Amino acid sequence: MWACVLWQSFWSPVCCWCLCTEHVLYSKMPKVVFTYFPLKGLGESGRLLLAYGGQEFEDRRITKDEWPEHKPKTPFGQLPVLEIDGKQYAQSVSIARYLGHKFGVAGADIEEDFEIDQNVEFLNDIRFKMVAVAHEPDPEVKKRKHEENVKNVYPGLLKKLNEIITKNNGHLALGKLTWGDFVLAGIYETMKKMLEIPDMDSQYPALKQLVDSVNSLPGVKEFIAQAPPSEF
Amino acid sequence: MWACVLWQSFWSPVCCWCLCTEHVLYSKMPKVVFTYFPLKGLGESGRLLLAYGGQEFEDRRITKDEWPEHKPKTPFGQLPVLEIDGKQYAQSVSIARYLGHKFGVAGADIEEDFEIDQNVEFLNDIRFKMVAVAHEPDPEVKKRKHEENVKNVYPGLLKKLNEIITKNNGHLALGKLTWGDFVLAGIYETMKKMLEIPDMDSQYPALKQLVDSVNSLPGVKEFIAQAPPSEF
Repeated sequence: MWACVLWQSFWSPVCCWCLCTEHVLYSKMPKVVFTYFPLKGLGESGRLLLAYGGQEFEDRRITKDEWPEHKPKTPFGQLPVLEIDGKQYAQSVSIARYLGHKFGVAGADIEEDFEIDQNVEFLNDIRFKMVAVAHEPDPEVKKRKHEENVKNVYPGLLKKLNEIITKNNGHLALGKLTWGDFVLAGIYETMKKMLEIPDMDSQYPALKQLVDSVNSLPGVKEFIAQAPPSEF
Repeated sequence: MWACVLWQSFWSPVCCWCLCTEHVLYSKMPKVVFTYFPLKGLGESGRLLLAYGGQEFEDRRITKDEWPEHKPKTPFGQLPVLEIDGKQYAQSVSIARYLGHKFGVAGADIEEDFEIDQNVEFLNDIRFKMVAVAHEPDPEVKKRKHEENVKNVYPGLLKKLNEIITKNNGHLALGKLTWGDFVLAGIYETMKKMLEIPDMDSQYPALKQLVDSVNSLPGVKEFIAQAPPSEF
């Protein structure tokens, strides 16, 4: 997509400032669309990273009714999907890693990249435990699994995650802001909802502090203030 | 760890070729240990990548009895763990990505890296469906979930994976050998065991061909020939 750099109106045949043809200085202006459901979940990290990177994007939120029509158009029948100039990018963590590299919040070398990847993969371990419960259709089994996780699984994992963040100066890895922080900040409200630990903020304070810190970043703060409300 | 470059024996006080002290040309020779259980599972991709990269390593296989003592010494209470000169690297996919970059089977830029990441993350979607069933303690629930997945979940995912590999010239991404291929080759036998699809090889031939192709690579072939046997 090409746009006049003066007013950035798309496909201007003439200058959109004075209607002459000399001011029409075209620059490559990528058309970016981020598509997810009207909730935070796996989509919010991508939105927050785009906002942090100062990248204008269409924040497309697909309703339940729209999804069946949209699903076959996605690379894996899943959301989120990031679209840049018509090219689709799928899978939430891969999108976050990609945007992290694009916007300068990745590692400086493969050793640093590894540390982010490793800690995000650990965060994913927690997510998959939650999701296995959420996807359980039998209410009895769901209740039993959830109670077992609340007792024997989540506390150890969350304690470890809290320790990692504390050790990393309030970040998920490397002691500094990386795309890994956006992954946790994006999923945090959904985690709270699914884990059903009412005092999670106070019990694991490093997680909450990291999330607040990401949500206060320039670009992110403004994005959140204008985004459609979603509980999780 | 330092080694004499002539014969590469560790900590040689004298030259190991002629026993003089002049030939003792020391070079940095990293001590590499890869620790996992005595099976393929999540560990095999790391072993195969190390073998492909020509990196000598200790292939440490922890038994069930040894695990409780070993567990607290790992970064996340999990295996596999790769150790290079005493530094620990955990989480299987992160290890594979790291070794892929080290041994020249990663993307050429962040766009290419993204494509590998995205397709590996999709492969992980299948793995997590399997694992959720495997971790189910109630035999009745386990049977019901497995049957449901065999009917409604696995076929679509495996068909898609087969299409991706076919489209990528027999590889998981980029139409060429990447660390993503090692992730699939490493987990394939375990997948077959857990998915319980007897004709998986013939039903999704691109997967089997990719695995055979990785297992025939120089270094990998020799590693497999001498590795302790493990069914999956």
